[in-house]
Amino acid sequence: MTHQLITPDSRFDAVILGNGDFPSHAVPLGILRNAPHIVCCDGAGISLIERGIVPDAIIGDGDSLPQKFKEEYGHIIHIVNEQEHNDQTKATLFCRNRGYRRIAYIGATGRREDHTIGNISLLMDYMTDYGMEPVMVTDHGYFIPCRGRSEFATFARQQVSIFNFGYTKISAEGLAWRTYDYRNWWQGTLNEAEGDSVTIDTDGNYIVFFTHNAKIRI
Amino acid sequence: MTHQLITPDSRFDAVILGNGDFPSHAVPLGILRNAPHIVCCDGAGISLIERGIVPDAIIGDGDSLPQKFKEEYGHIIHIVNEQEHNDQTKATLFCRNRGYRRIAYIGATGRREDHTIGNISLLMDYMTDYGMEPVMVTDHGYFIPCRGRSEFATFARQQVSIFNFGYTKISAEGLAWRTYDYRNWWQGTLNEAEGDSVTIDTDGNYIVFFTHNAKIRI
Repeated sequence: MTHQLITPDSRFDAVILGNGDFPSHAVPLGILRNAPHIVCCDGAGISLIERGIVPDAIIGDGDSLPQKFKEEYGHIIHIVNEQEHNDQTKATLFCRNRGYRRIAYIGATGRREDHTIGNISLLMDYMTDYGMEPVMVTDHGYFIPCRGRSEFATFARQQVSIFNFGYTKISAEGLAWRTYDYRNWWQGTLNEAEGDSVTIDTDGNYIVFFTHNAKIRI
Repeated sequence: MTHQLITPDSRFDAVILGNGDFPSHAVPLGILRNAPHIVCCDGAGISLIERGIVPDAIIGDGDSLPQKFKEEYGHIIHIVNEQEHNDQTKATLFCRNRGYRRIAYIGATGRREDHTIGNISLLMDYMTDYGMEPVMVTDHGYFIPCRGRSEFATFARQQVSIFNFGYTKISAEGLAWRTYDYRNWWQGTLNEAEGDSVTIDTDGNYIVFFTHNAKIRI
């Protein structure tokens, strides 16, 4: 599979806006602005409407929505009370039912760190279990769940981190540092693209992170 | 092993201040204020001195320190140029050499999410490989690396997440939701303490996260 650079002009079927930090970087803001559909996780719906954008839908248990807000926006609020899934996954299932497969997750990080870790790792299940094409876009970079062989458009000194989700063999081209079968989360972090392309080949699943900006060397 | 609640008055041998978001919550700020020793990762030294506190040492490759700052604080700056370890690990090795074992990691999260994930997971290696007793304290809660059986002081509705670092069996008392051998990072998140104690028993390693505040139910 080939992945283009994620830029403010990258196109997605929909954006899922989480209840973490509202984005401030040009890339997630551009994607949000261009989104054909926006689905918000619970309280994120309030943040978005305060900024003048009304989403297609607000999904969650409704716990964080004031009664007055619920009355005014009842037509786009979908209360899902089951406790099996968090709001991000509820929003993902909503998108799948609508036929949106290529999803940008924005605002999914930046508050409780255990939520950040959980939300990133859920991307893998959305790919393997739900057949989605998810990309999480933060103020710092973007996460893509992958399996097997993938090629990525990159730029020199773009920072790259690889997280092992079950492979035992890995090889890569275009990275500054050797890859191996990382056992601990940190081991695949702090790599770097050498030029305009990186290819990763594994016998399993992994999540790769790319920064928006090149590392500056003094 | 028994772990007390982490509060602003919790005592540590030293604080390692990272170059992530400077803390704003009372718990990490209290621990920082009470620290007998403070070791800063590179640029975090500038942030701390700007706030009127001079650390014992500033560790890193010195890349992010302006020349004037280097001259003024040369007596506490320790340049470590090797590329095997990140600044957090360099600071940890410095502390180990000084005989500090019980370390609070503050300011280690909140910017690049791959750094956040890497820094949290490094706590495990500090415990297993270096014999340290690390606790990472953020604005939202605290992470503790553990192995085998551990008992934790808790409070009702304190939120708890467990991350599997190699166990195959787990049992727990005092948690709202059943534990199992989590395969994906998210699976152990969003648990909750029922009262003033949680006991976790495994055949391997795990990192546990506790929030500073109880979950509010409407």
